[in-house]
Amino acid sequence: MYDTTMYALGAKRSAIRALFDYGQEQAAKVGKENVFDFSIGNPSIPAPNCVQDEIVRLAREEAPAAIHGYTPAPGDPVVRQGVADYMNQTFQANVTGNNFYMTCGASASLAIILRALIAENEDEIIVNAPFFPEYRVFIQNAGGRLVMVPPDTEQFQLSMTGLAEAITSHTKAVIINTPNNPSGSVYSADTLMKLGELLRCKSAEFGHPIFLISDEPYREVIYDGLPVLYVPEFYKNTVICYSYSKSLSLPGERVGYILVPNEVDGSREIFTAVCGSGRSMGFVCAPHLFQKVILACQGKTANIGIYDSNRKLIYHGLTDIGFQCVYPSGAFYLFVKAPDGDANQFMENAKKLNILIVPGDEFGCPGYCRISYCVDPDMIRRSLPVFKQLYELYSHV
Amino acid sequence: MYDTTMYALGAKRSAIRALFDYGQEQAAKVGKENVFDFSIGNPSIPAPNCVQDEIVRLAREEAPAAIHGYTPAPGDPVVRQGVADYMNQTFQANVTGNNFYMTCGASASLAIILRALIAENEDEIIVNAPFFPEYRVFIQNAGGRLVMVPPDTEQFQLSMTGLAEAITSHTKAVIINTPNNPSGSVYSADTLMKLGELLRCKSAEFGHPIFLISDEPYREVIYDGLPVLYVPEFYKNTVICYSYSKSLSLPGERVGYILVPNEVDGSREIFTAVCGSGRSMGFVCAPHLFQKVILACQGKTANIGIYDSNRKLIYHGLTDIGFQCVYPSGAFYLFVKAPDGDANQFMENAKKLNILIVPGDEFGCPGYCRISYCVDPDMIRRSLPVFKQLYELYSHV
Repeated sequence: MYDTTMYALGAKRSAIRALFDYGQEQAAKVGKENVFDFSIGNPSIPAPNCVQDEIVRLAREEAPAAIHGYTPAPGDPVVRQGVADYMNQTFQANVTGNNFYMTCGASASLAIILRALIAENEDEIIVNAPFFPEYRVFIQNAGGRLVMVPPDTEQFQLSMTGLAEAITSHTKAVIINTPNNPSGSVYSADTLMKLGELLRCKSAEFGHPIFLISDEPYREVIYDGLPVLYVPEFYKNTVICYSYSKSLSLPGERVGYILVPNEVDGSREIFTAVCGSGRSMGFVCAPHLFQKVILACQGKTANIGIYDSNRKLIYHGLTDIGFQCVYPSGAFYLFVKAPDGDANQFMENAKKLNILIVPGDEFGCPGYCRISYCVDPDMIRRSLPVFKQLYELYSHV
Repeated sequence: MYDTTMYALGAKRSAIRALFDYGQEQAAKVGKENVFDFSIGNPSIPAPNCVQDEIVRLAREEAPAAIHGYTPAPGDPVVRQGVADYMNQTFQANVTGNNFYMTCGASASLAIILRALIAENEDEIIVNAPFFPEYRVFIQNAGGRLVMVPPDTEQFQLSMTGLAEAITSHTKAVIINTPNNPSGSVYSADTLMKLGELLRCKSAEFGHPIFLISDEPYREVIYDGLPVLYVPEFYKNTVICYSYSKSLSLPGERVGYILVPNEVDGSREIFTAVCGSGRSMGFVCAPHLFQKVILACQGKTANIGIYDSNRKLIYHGLTDIGFQCVYPSGAFYLFVKAPDGDANQFMENAKKLNILIVPGDEFGCPGYCRISYCVDPDMIRRSLPVFKQLYELYSHV
């Protein structure tokens, strides 16, 4: 009567969403102040003022038809050029508006580029653990095969030996995500250089380009003055999937883009396939008003400093208790080791104390739990004594 | 290197989009006032005031996180319940918010429901000519087979004999679109009654439900005081795909819904498959701000009276010249017979006079051209003498 794969996808909520919903229910029962929900990556910082100001200006000063009408499928030409200008100023990217396809956010960007690239059931897409679990869903939807490279749990950079072993003649693309969800790690220039070298080498070996899909919704959520790197500088066959969800705190508005630079092999053909892919899934255009809003806010971000102080608060709070984790340099996640190595039990134990954290299994990294710290700093402070109780359950370890 | 089906979809622009772009180019060459662009269904009437007022109110009075954050995948619960309340008041629909899945517009609604329903390559989806050409794309994306019922060119109602012949044991669903793009016809209660009877009969014959997908973006764009009918009243296994693009003149904002009433066989399972289908294509949620905006504008529409006067102006203008067409009762299209039956040549002849109209071939109805009259009435007036020139080319017919 219906497609069972789609039913299963709808029924098996993501573990993250399920925890988030549980948290809402618990809050109703035991009081909001007694639930410590670190489950979801929903930005807690308000959008910068430029967002509300531009919304009001557009609504008050522009003709409704000019701000709410269809845009061409790849986006409003002025918006696309404006984004290109910003990328050129920031990264010497050498792009024009024609390289940009505006999307309904990073998930749409990924679903669309994967459907555009994957041509056969044998096509393999390599993901690097820990990875965003929805990659699996989008690769499956596009008819390809997911190949997972095990995590480098030392620093949560890329495992080059793992990658080198995973690449075959069927490899169509490699997905990276830096700053990384869930580890908070930021790939260094050294990592990206080695990655570029490997992909050039393997492309030559197999006689076809291996594309790099750089999933960058956290690009500007980066700390300690680390430089924001432009991935295509390290490897020319790079396609960027971007979203304004995190940088401008607009996750519900669904606006982002796919950038296919000219240097990519078959750039125009791939861009055309992107247009076809978006069309086939019913993406008519990215929301028009918010295309204009993000244009007015290029180079602006929400106040990332708040995440930075949250980061320090929770990292030092937890490691002082005794928990182990790598100090994150970006995004708003801490990836904590389960004291006895059993992350699912760790999650369950935490849940009994109304601390909601996500086991790393879905991210391809068992033994760790993800803590989203895009939350009220007061909740972090209140949670620390409860985390201490949690840690004490493991005193025998 | 990329998927050739997606490339072809991206490269073969829809005929409508191609004409629209040609019109923009011609306007730059010969002056905007000398191009008569009737190619595209881009609402020409501004959104009603409630839209801009609610946008400004939300931006000024609500916390940014509350209006721009993620909503649950099926939509903001308050919005869904508000839409349900409106449907109950208007149609005694007997629905709740749980029957609604908010989408990024009607195309997304269709792509998602088709992917949710189609389980095998043998599954057939019946479309009734003339039909919206993107149905073909969405059915193909979902892995099903399109079966076309030839048009009833007398009144552009449904061809019941054609439908009866088209339904087989593989029929998964029938798509209808009333008010109809491109014919402007509105299916009568009598048509819907016969359709319901046929589908009940055939469902019983083949021992499984045949679903009815009612594609209703033009629901409120209806004239002459005709009643707006609630299709599930005529056939219980009806799923509604709706969009606010036309009723509120918000085509670029991408907001609509899928309604799966409780009476549908396997209602909750289908709803779950809809959630999975949306997830698989990267639809995280419908744009949040505009979910709230349409909630505030339930029951409101743009000033449809302007389309009505356009309708009379162009219908009488063209039929006085000698053109033949059925008087439309809804939507904003006129479906005109090519005087000699060759719609492609008719379109080409018109194009030479800078009149842009869309041949019916793509809609499964050769011999007719679609004229979108969601345009400036002055353009209609200026175009009439040029239409007369066009008609005179056929004086020998």
